[in-house]
Amino acid sequence: MIPTLYLIPSTLGAENVNDFLPEGTLTIIRSLQYFIVEDSKTARAFLKTCSITIPQSELVIQELDKHQPDQDMAELLLPMKSGISMGLLSEAGCPGVADPGARVVAEAHRNGYKVMPLVGPSSLLLALMASGLSGQQFCFHGYLPIDKAERMKKIQRMEEAAKSKKETQLFIETPYRNNQLLADLLQYLSGETKICLASDLTTPDEHIRTLKVKDWKKSPPELHKKPCVF
Amino acid sequence: MIPTLYLIPSTLGAENVNDFLPEGTLTIIRSLQYFIVEDSKTARAFLKTCSITIPQSELVIQELDKHQPDQDMAELLLPMKSGISMGLLSEAGCPGVADPGARVVAEAHRNGYKVMPLVGPSSLLLALMASGLSGQQFCFHGYLPIDKAERMKKIQRMEEAAKSKKETQLFIETPYRNNQLLADLLQYLSGETKICLASDLTTPDEHIRTLKVKDWKKSPPELHKKPCVF
Repeated sequence: MIPTLYLIPSTLGAENVNDFLPEGTLTIIRSLQYFIVEDSKTARAFLKTCSITIPQSELVIQELDKHQPDQDMAELLLPMKSGISMGLLSEAGCPGVADPGARVVAEAHRNGYKVMPLVGPSSLLLALMASGLSGQQFCFHGYLPIDKAERMKKIQRMEEAAKSKKETQLFIETPYRNNQLLADLLQYLSGETKICLASDLTTPDEHIRTLKVKDWKKSPPELHKKPCVF
Repeated sequence: MIPTLYLIPSTLGAENVNDFLPEGTLTIIRSLQYFIVEDSKTARAFLKTCSITIPQSELVIQELDKHQPDQDMAELLLPMKSGISMGLLSEAGCPGVADPGARVVAEAHRNGYKVMPLVGPSSLLLALMASGLSGQQFCFHGYLPIDKAERMKKIQRMEEAAKSKKETQLFIETPYRNNQLLADLLQYLSGETKICLASDLTTPDEHIRTLKVKDWKKSPPELHKKPCVF
């Protein structure tokens, strides 16, 4: 039988996994013994909240580092050569989306293994849904350039694409730099351009609001250290 | 209390909602009486599979048409003026993503209502996760142009963006035109460009495979009438 690489979403900071992961996803997590993760400590803590029945000491957990060379991807998937299915787990949200997991998935495809994505929370998708901005066409840019001039150019190019193609632009920032990014957006964008700020998604502090730049300027929110999708 | 517009994902063709919707999402669906949907008949069938306890005759279901003028969005949300929370339901997958729901969400933001996205399946996100292609930067284009020359130009522009920016390009097609779209891609793209075909997601017929164009050419799959993300 062809083994399967299951792509396992994890919660975004919420404690109750049942609120955010379907029973179908949890059942598969509980059936697996082999995992590829970003950080074993947080992965073990997450698996515990999923009420796994395999003792932690019997789990085989390998860490994926974004700086690892390509040949290491093949090594991570070695158990699949013996027909064992594995789980690829993200630190938060969906593996392969704004995280280093895609290289492992690509290696699985190269070997002809089955790849099965499981349903769970993605901050990008939740933010897009809740923004009220177009979901007919959208672009995710990851992190914006740090260099001041390049960043300004990127922001202006995104505004141009949003206007001319009616394409929603999504991006993220290291949480302790969120306030600076918002300040830059309010400085460089036209007053009529809409910004959605979606922070602390799926937690009790979740806050999602879409306003025009000129309205955000009146009372810019405090985003310091809050995970936020722009 | 400020009422909430809940954004409710529906299944993608799977029968068992528990496999694909978290208990948290199902609990909220069961608490609601007012819904905005695309088609009441399929919406009622979906709500039934969610084991709602409110009798169908007491549900208040309004239909959203993508051709409706903006003022109708305000009318759809009228119950929220009296403090009633509502659910916005997609035909398949997540409301506001590749569907007409975003205009309702925008109206909710204009009125200062709370907007809460719920976790559930999105074919675009599942396809992206499972593709093994970059999820650090990606763009969703909706449907490609139908005009032959324009379509070719669009396909070439997407390939250029994929190469120069390492940005994954996602798009969809009306299912009965899938084979034609695949033929066009295989004709216009370079042999080394990778295509992921993700069809019938979350169903027993789910099929996800990423290959280079030159390899797809050897045995192009049958995609006729299968919901597919490219």
